[in-house]
Amino acid sequence: MHFFSDNAARVSPQILSALADADHVDTAYDGDAWSARLSDSFSRLFEKDVAALWVTTGTVANCLALAALCPPFGGVLCHEEAHVETDEGGAPEFFTHGAKLMTVPGDGAKISPDALQSRLSAIRNDVHQVQPHALTITNATEYGRVYSPAEVAALGALCREHGLGFHMDGARFANAVATLGCHPADLTWRAGVDALSFGFVKNGGMTAEALIFFDPALAADTLRRRKRAGHLLSKGRYLAAQLLAMLEGDLWLDNARAANAAARIIAEAAGARCMHLVEANEIFLRVTAQEAATLRAQGFDFYDWGEGAARLVTCWHHEAKDVQPLANAIAAL
Amino acid sequence: MHFFSDNAARVSPQILSALADADHVDTAYDGDAWSARLSDSFSRLFEKDVAALWVTTGTVANCLALAALCPPFGGVLCHEEAHVETDEGGAPEFFTHGAKLMTVPGDGAKISPDALQSRLSAIRNDVHQVQPHALTITNATEYGRVYSPAEVAALGALCREHGLGFHMDGARFANAVATLGCHPADLTWRAGVDALSFGFVKNGGMTAEALIFFDPALAADTLRRRKRAGHLLSKGRYLAAQLLAMLEGDLWLDNARAANAAARIIAEAAGARCMHLVEANEIFLRVTAQEAATLRAQGFDFYDWGEGAARLVTCWHHEAKDVQPLANAIAAL
Amino acid sequence: MHFFSDNAARVSPQILSALADADHVDTAYDGDAWSARLSDSFSRLFEKDVAALWVTTGTVANCLALAALCPPFGGVLCHEEAHVETDEGGAPEFFTHGAKLMTVPGDGAKISPDALQSRLSAIRNDVHQVQPHALTITNATEYGRVYSPAEVAALGALCREHGLGFHMDGARFANAVATLGCHPADLTWRAGVDALSFGFVKNGGMTAEALIFFDPALAADTLRRRKRAGHLLSKGRYLAAQLLAMLEGDLWLDNARAANAAARIIAEAAGARCMHLVEANEIFLRVTAQEAATLRAQGFDFYDWGEGAARLVTCWHHEAKDVQPLANAIAAL
Amino acid sequence: MHFFSDNAARVSPQILSALADADHVDTAYDGDAWSARLSDSFSRLFEKDVAALWVTTGTVANCLALAALCPPFGGVLCHEEAHVETDEGGAPEFFTHGAKLMTVPGDGAKISPDALQSRLSAIRNDVHQVQPHALTITNATEYGRVYSPAEVAALGALCREHGLGFHMDGARFANAVATLGCHPADLTWRAGVDALSFGFVKNGGMTAEALIFFDPALAADTLRRRKRAGHLLSKGRYLAAQLLAMLEGDLWLDNARAANAAARIIAEAAGARCMHLVEANEIFLRVTAQEAATLRAQGFDFYDWGEGAARLVTCWHHEAKDVQPLANAIAAL
Repeated sequence: MHFFSDNAARVSPQILSALADADHVDTAYDGDAWSARLSDSFSRLFEKDVAALWVTTGTVANCLALAALCPPFGGVLCHEEAHVETDEGGAPEFFTHGAKLMTVPGDGAKISPDALQSRLSAIRNDVHQVQPHALTITNATEYGRVYSPAEVAALGALCREHGLGFHMDGARFANAVATLGCHPADLTWRAGVDALSFGFVKNGGMTAEALIFFDPALAADTLRRRKRAGHLLSKGRYLAAQLLAMLEGDLWLDNARAANAAARIIAEAAGARCMHLVEANEIFLRVTAQEAATLRAQGFDFYDWGEGAARLVTCWHHEAKDVQPLANAIAAL
Repeated sequence: MHFFSDNAARVSPQILSALADADHVDTAYDGDAWSARLSDSFSRLFEKDVAALWVTTGTVANCLALAALCPPFGGVLCHEEAHVETDEGGAPEFFTHGAKLMTVPGDGAKISPDALQSRLSAIRNDVHQVQPHALTITNATEYGRVYSPAEVAALGALCREHGLGFHMDGARFANAVATLGCHPADLTWRAGVDALSFGFVKNGGMTAEALIFFDPALAADTLRRRKRAGHLLSKGRYLAAQLLAMLEGDLWLDNARAANAAARIIAEAAGARCMHLVEANEIFLRVTAQEAATLRAQGFDFYDWGEGAARLVTCWHHEAKDVQPLANAIAAL
Repeated sequence: MHFFSDNAARVSPQILSALADADHVDTAYDGDAWSARLSDSFSRLFEKDVAALWVTTGTVANCLALAALCPPFGGVLCHEEAHVETDEGGAPEFFTHGAKLMTVPGDGAKISPDALQSRLSAIRNDVHQVQPHALTITNATEYGRVYSPAEVAALGALCREHGLGFHMDGARFANAVATLGCHPADLTWRAGVDALSFGFVKNGGMTAEALIFFDPALAADTLRRRKRAGHLLSKGRYLAAQLLAMLEGDLWLDNARAANAAARIIAEAAGARCMHLVEANEIFLRVTAQEAATLRAQGFDFYDWGEGAARLVTCWHHEAKDVQPLANAIAAL
Repeated sequence: MHFFSDNAARVSPQILSALADADHVDTAYDGDAWSARLSDSFSRLFEKDVAALWVTTGTVANCLALAALCPPFGGVLCHEEAHVETDEGGAPEFFTHGAKLMTVPGDGAKISPDALQSRLSAIRNDVHQVQPHALTITNATEYGRVYSPAEVAALGALCREHGLGFHMDGARFANAVATLGCHPADLTWRAGVDALSFGFVKNGGMTAEALIFFDPALAADTLRRRKRAGHLLSKGRYLAAQLLAMLEGDLWLDNARAANAAARIIAEAAGARCMHLVEANEIFLRVTAQEAATLRAQGFDFYDWGEGAARLVTCWHHEAKDVQPLANAIAAL
């Protein structure tokens, strides 16, 4: 049984159906009927007029958002273990034309208002030092932790005070919402978020992610930047159709709930082995090399995460019966 | 009946099947079994070891190739009506970090060796003038014209003489090969081409194009640039599977032949109205506004192309019976 | 006697004196007393509050202005023989992060309102085509022609109509003003110009040029871009002092008048050999290779300008007695 | 008496003389007789064929070097308090087109081989993580510490082992050489350094710094990048002349020795108040706000350096009699 990545999972059956349903002639690029419905569909979900763009990766969603919020000569505050800082191959610098990522420490890849304030205070306002223009946080974080609406709002207030744009990398936004049981609006624009990378691929999607601007005016230049980055697919309807299928009947939320539930079963069995609170679909486990080998010998796949640690990720299609054997095996270590 | 774009067409049924077949758990990004077969499959087609990468648009294929062949301070020679110059929203400048497109005139969007030589001769070799580092041509061209292997080889020889990299934008490469009846190798690396954007989306594909480096060493940095541009999809297997389906049984060639045949039927009916020799699947027609309206009134869709002209594009699924009514309507104008 | 470039001339004696006068300890970068006087001094000259920055080259002045007026995904309209297009080694693309230069033809390197309007009309407003954001003209032009205040104003009106920023490359602005006898304000902001590269180095200066923003708010980001491009010299007072010396007693205008007067003496002798109206300090001459050799044999230095042509440039220190021998030699050809 | 910056000092009298001496007509840009002598003069100093370019700031020297050593998608290792990281307004990112600065900690802004090795070991070699391509160190460091030839060589060996280019920011290289009493070659290319920003402005110069490539082949593209960044001054002879004057009779070394000697007098008086070993011309002092005020009341100028600290910088023209009063005042605190 595979627990190495939610990117490795197969797609929800509704995705394949949606592709077949969209298989009709229509206007190219994003001029088609499916793409035309996107902003309305996401506006309903967020209870606010938003601009929604399809893109193919979380990286490009993140980076288009950052380019919209930060000039080339500015800086973007992020956690020192944020995906944009450590795992996007320099994409933020590419899309922003060299804006500087300014890192902030914090447990579980979370940024606290104090840590943010402290970082801001250390920056001299002169032309010799890069000035911050935006903050980006990841929710759920790279360690599977979750920011509550109140925690996001506290950061949002600091952003407004310092004139910073506010972006949320929501590669696992669905898992965060599922855990918090809150309204998507409360976790985003009501808390001061300007742009959201809304991930679907890790959550049962195939090749479509959404970039949401809560101020639709921010999207205008981004449409040009998307094209300029080679990200305006000519048959965009096959991306839009995937996103619409995900929103239909809250499939995105069902999928996330399933993955989260599977993670909780493992987390409970793992107990004190968990390095971080398990609030989404990732479990970071303290295991010796010997213990890891024992688990692998029983057919469980996962990634090592530095020395003495392992990362396990559950997926939308994991049911209790799928993960219980792993939970048992961990408990038996 | 729609003739406005081959980007608007539905996909070949084999593409949907391939997506379903690939719907199994596998390693993320391009570490999966499908992606792993790409270079071998294209190497067989080209009778040479090549590096093949999946990408999602022709624009990114073109621009990754140009970035591999030209430094930021260099120039890329292209036709003044080339897609990279007129229709990619500044993407070549984005990917190359500001390399300069240096345009060359020529009928039918074709560059002749004389025109190329003449352009090269006008450039002073000093630090004040940008120096050319690469040539890019489109085959079939933006006006549906085709470069023969000998014509490509003549340009390739000039490239070697002047130390220029040589890229071919093959958004409709399949149509060119189908028309010429030549071996794909003769139209590319045997004629001096270093990199090919091999288009599939206009030819019945969904969201996958191929970027081919005939010197596999050129691909190493490009893998990093692809990631850095947000173009490394996490479920890449669904792209690789599309390309493999296209190569299977030469589906790509069958589709192109069908589109070309449909175009020829229209071209023959149009006769002297054709503004350019019809050698692929595009027909540029001299029509008055009144004549265009007459055609549209009969249910034929197409784009106006400036004043007094229209562009019609045939697709992989057009059969003789589909285009004959249009041919008749044109003949009757 | 040298006529190959006004860049080759020695500096006005006032420049060396100014450097000696500024040779006292003061705050680094642009925090010194000399730099602090710049904006006020230029505001007096232009009869308007302006922001004035010292820079070291016309290229960086031009490119900082363009970066202030055009986003990376935009375009800058310029003459096809403009210095920014042909002689700055790709600097505009570097500073703007890849904005596209969109060229316009015209005699004497001048852009007419009709030519500009025609170029604008050919651009489709969609994300596939780069959209123009600014116009830049050179006054005096690369061929020594001059735009009158009315001609500039006609272009300025088009810029406002189309939402374009308007930059003037004034590498030889002094020569233009000297010829026109107009007020510097009439040739710039009163005619709709947003930013001016005000050249001094070709006019007797050493290493300092001025970049003028007629809307001082435009300068804020530019101060950061100047630093980011390595152009914030640590002993900036030695640049500011040069510019202040040039403004003192209208030295800039005296120098330009002298150079223009010298050019007119040559132009009158050359008569119909002049390829362009001589309105500044450059003369483009029709001469055979034999005739050029004849002149050189008499000790006159100048550049060939393609086949059958030569460029001669007069300088601030040329007096009638210096150029009369050349005028005589040309008349005697 | 001013101790706030060596950038604030006046210039050596030889610099003004050199400008007057160079005040003759000559070829523009770097085609003049002075510029032509640069590489030879620096080659003699370094006992090796080098390519030497004049530039106007240390920032552009650093950034041109980094752009020569690191591609846009690569990373540059530097100290977390390096000038390139904290005080160049994002210039390294601008010149490298977004390469990532990867910081390393260390006392006194020095990088140890262990710290470098540890940072390197933490980087996964995949396309998701930016790969380091170069190391840059500052000698003397931002805290006035010095790397010995052996220390530089140990880092140089690590660079070769890991395929990294090696740059030295020598804004105060003269002070380091003066302190070490070593040969400039031992501190640079013999220790594995590929490129040196050789500072002169802080050491009595006016507007000229030198960029030295120990492999002259590295300079070719840099000449284009210098032009493209607007840094090719048209009257370059006035920069070259400054550098030649500095090399003449080892003026650069005399000036640095004088500044260092002045710093040592202060350091000895300050004793345990010194936060870092004083090995160049900077003294970082532990002083209370009250003590700082006491010094200022006696007429001594300097910068606060965070809470409870001050930075004092001595200059080329400081003699013992100039700094003794400050030394006495510090001792008397």
